[in-house]
Amino acid sequence: MACVITLTTDFGSCDAYVASMKGAILSINPTAIIIDICHSIEPQNVLQAAFILSTAYRYFPKDTIHMAVVDPGVGSQRKAIILKTPSAFFLAPDNGVLSYIIDELCPTSIGALPSVSDQGTEMKLGTTFEAIAIANPAFWRQSVSPTFHGRDIFAPVAAHLSTGVPLSEFGENIDSIQVLPLTQPYYDAENVLIGHIIHIDHFGNLITNIRGYHLPNKEIIINVGDMSIYGLSYFYAQREGTVAIIGSNNYLEISLTNGNASELLGAETGDRVKIRLIDRY
Amino acid sequence: MACVITLTTDFGSCDAYVASMKGAILSINPTAIIIDICHSIEPQNVLQAAFILSTAYRYFPKDTIHMAVVDPGVGSQRKAIILKTPSAFFLAPDNGVLSYIIDELCPTSIGALPSVSDQGTEMKLGTTFEAIAIANPAFWRQSVSPTFHGRDIFAPVAAHLSTGVPLSEFGENIDSIQVLPLTQPYYDAENVLIGHIIHIDHFGNLITNIRGYHLPNKEIIINVGDMSIYGLSYFYAQREGTVAIIGSNNYLEISLTNGNASELLGAETGDRVKIRLIDRY
Amino acid sequence: MACVITLTTDFGSCDAYVASMKGAILSINPTAIIIDICHSIEPQNVLQAAFILSTAYRYFPKDTIHMAVVDPGVGSQRKAIILKTPSAFFLAPDNGVLSYIIDELCPTSIGALPSVSDQGTEMKLGTTFEAIAIANPAFWRQSVSPTFHGRDIFAPVAAHLSTGVPLSEFGENIDSIQVLPLTQPYYDAENVLIGHIIHIDHFGNLITNIRGYHLPNKEIIINVGDMSIYGLSYFYAQREGTVAIIGSNNYLEISLTNGNASELLGAETGDRVKIRLIDRY
Repeated sequence: MACVITLTTDFGSCDAYVASMKGAILSINPTAIIIDICHSIEPQNVLQAAFILSTAYRYFPKDTIHMAVVDPGVGSQRKAIILKTPSAFFLAPDNGVLSYIIDELCPTSIGALPSVSDQGTEMKLGTTFEAIAIANPAFWRQSVSPTFHGRDIFAPVAAHLSTGVPLSEFGENIDSIQVLPLTQPYYDAENVLIGHIIHIDHFGNLITNIRGYHLPNKEIIINVGDMSIYGLSYFYAQREGTVAIIGSNNYLEISLTNGNASELLGAETGDRVKIRLIDRY
Repeated sequence: MACVITLTTDFGSCDAYVASMKGAILSINPTAIIIDICHSIEPQNVLQAAFILSTAYRYFPKDTIHMAVVDPGVGSQRKAIILKTPSAFFLAPDNGVLSYIIDELCPTSIGALPSVSDQGTEMKLGTTFEAIAIANPAFWRQSVSPTFHGRDIFAPVAAHLSTGVPLSEFGENIDSIQVLPLTQPYYDAENVLIGHIIHIDHFGNLITNIRGYHLPNKEIIINVGDMSIYGLSYFYAQREGTVAIIGSNNYLEISLTNGNASELLGAETGDRVKIRLIDRY
Repeated sequence: MACVITLTTDFGSCDAYVASMKGAILSINPTAIIIDICHSIEPQNVLQAAFILSTAYRYFPKDTIHMAVVDPGVGSQRKAIILKTPSAFFLAPDNGVLSYIIDELCPTSIGALPSVSDQGTEMKLGTTFEAIAIANPAFWRQSVSPTFHGRDIFAPVAAHLSTGVPLSEFGENIDSIQVLPLTQPYYDAENVLIGHIIHIDHFGNLITNIRGYHLPNKEIIINVGDMSIYGLSYFYAQREGTVAIIGSNNYLEISLTNGNASELLGAETGDRVKIRLIDRY
C-alpha cells in the first residue's frame, strides 16, 4: 500500500542515520513514499522540532505517517507513542515533540491569552485523538540498539503501520501524552499585545507566536528591538525595508525585503515583540 | 501517472518549506516522483538558480516538470508561468530564473560574443516553445498565501500537470518571458578571449561562462588572478596543482587537483578570466 | 522492477551534481527508488565515505544497489567496479571506498588486533563475492564526461543493473579490489587496549574503531584526552557528562549527554583512545 512517511530529526546530514531509517522502512514496505521534513533541528531541541513539524503536516495527504525523532531520552524509560488524529499519524518519543500539533488541535482560548500555555506536562487526550504506547517488539527490528530507536523501533513500526497493521497491534491505549509549555501571546496593557519570536527561518524572517486570529481589526505598530513597523504588509516585496506580514502558516513574522531581518536587528529566538493596537477612526 | 517533478529553491534546509511543497504535490498526485535539484540557492539569487537548473534539467526523463521557486516578488503582480520546451516543462515566477535554459535553447551567435547577452528583458518566444501565464485558481490550493506560491500555486499546478491536465487549462498563452542579461565571453583583442566566473561549486572549482565550443583549436594560456595555466587538462588528477578543464556541463573550469581552487586563488563569482590563444605550429 | 539505489558522494548540496545522477537513473529506470545516504563526505575523503556507507548498507533491502562516488581519480585509469555480496551490490571507483565493507565481510582475526589491517592494497576476493570491472559502454551515457563518471557511467550502470541486466554484461570478472589500510585497535600492554577515533558524528559523538566484540568481559576505564570515563553506559541519558557507549553500529563511542563531546574534549578524528581493562572481582 503506497503511503507517505515523513521524517523530522536532529540527525543532520553528515552521517548515515537518516538513510538507515529509510532502509529499515523500505525493508518492510518497499512502496512507502518517504519525505524528509527537516533533519537540521538543533541537537536535542525538542521544541524546535515540534514547531517545524507543525508547519508542515497539514499539507500532506490524509493518513500520512509523521515520524519525529528528536529523542535525547532514547533508551530510557520514556514512552514511544503513536498519536492518531483525524488527518494523520504521528510517531514520536513521548517528550513533547508533538506539543504544537496538540496545541493546534486543542487550541487554548484566545480570549484568555495566558503568558504560557495552561497545559500541564501531561495533556489529557479527548475523544478526537487516539494514542498508544509502543510496546509490541514483534514490529521492531530483531535487535534494538538502546541509542537508535529511530532505526530499530520507530522506522519499522511506521513501515508496518503504513502496510495497514491496526494501531491496536502496536501497544496499549494511553489517555494522556507529554506536552511542553508553549509561550502564548498576552496583553501587557489594554491594546498592548506581547509576543515572542519562536523561530527564525532560513531567510532570517522572525516568526512570532502571534497568529493572524490574535490580531483584532485595529491599526497596529510593531516594536522589535529598536525597530518600529507601522501596519501589516501583504507580501515581502510590497515595501522596502522591514515589513510585518501574516506568513504562510498564519504567524505574524517580521521580514526584511531582499535581506535578512534577523541579522539586521540582531534578533534571536525568544526575543520579545510588542504590538500596539490603535483604534481605527 | 508516474512523472518526475524537480524542485530548485532558495528555501534552505532548516525549515519545512520544501516538505510543504512535496506534501502539496503528493496530495494531488501520490505517484509523482519528486527530486530535489538544489535548495541552497542564495536567498533571492535568481541568476544562481537559473544556472544550477540549467546544469541539471537535460539529464531527466522527457517531460519532466521542473519547478524553480526563487521568488522575491511573490505576491506582487509578477507573472507565474509554465514554459513547455520539446523536452520538459518549467514552472517558475516570470523573473528570469529560466534565463540560462532560454539561452541554451536559443543560443546567441558564437561569432558575435557580445559582452552581455543582447536579449532584452523581454524575450520573444519562437514556435519551439509554448508558455502560459498561470491564472486558473481551480488548480491552486483553496487558500493561497501571498508569501508562499511555491506551496499554494506552483506545487499544485505541477501536480495537476503531472496527472495529464493540458497546458491550456492553467492559463492563457503568452508570447514573451523575462530573461536576465547573461554575461557572455568576448574578444578583448585578437586572440584574447575574456570570460568570467559564473559559479563556484562545492569543490571550489571555478566555472566560467566560456563553453567548450567557444575555444578555437589553438594552444591556450589561462590567466585567473595571478595564476597562469598552460593548456587544458582532460581530467582533474591528470596534473598536480591548478588545472583547466572543460567540465561536465561543457563550461571551462579551473580546478585544484585534490584541493579548492577558489580558496587557493581567492577567486569569487564575477571575477575575470583571460584566455590567450596561440596558433599551433 | 522496483529496486533501491543508494547514493554516497562528496558532492555537497550547493550544485546539481547529485540531481543529475538521479535524472540519469530515472531516465533508464523510472521505478528506481533512490535514497541519499550522505553527500557531505569531505571532498576526496575516500575513507570517510567508506565508513559512512558501511554504517548504512545493512539496513537496506536485499539486493539494494549502493553507489559510492568519491572519486578523485575520475577520468584516470583507475577501474570502476561492481561488487556483488550475498546481500547487496556496490558500484564504486576501485579506490578503497569499499574498504570497511570488505573488512566487515572478511573481518581480520580479533585475537591478532594488528595496529593496521594486514590487508595489502590489493585484496583477493574469495568465493563469497563477485566483482567485475565496468567496461561495456553500451550501458553508459552516450557521451561520457571525463570528470563526471557518477552521472555518465555509475548512474546508468546502476539503473540498468536495477532493471535486471546480469552482472556479466557490464564487464569482465576481476579477482581482487583495492582496499585502504584501516587502523585496528591493538594491545599496548596486557589489559591496555589502544583504539582511535575514526569518525565524529553530527552530535559530536566520538566513534572509535573499537567494536563491541573487542571488549572482554572486564571492568573498563576509558581515557580520551584528559578525560577518564569509568565503565560503559547503556544509553546517552543514563548519566550526566561524558559517557562511553557501544553505539548503534557496534562501535565504542564517547558522548556528552545533551552536549557535544568533540567540542568539550577538543577531540579530532585520528585521536587515540586508551582502554584499561580490570578484572572483575
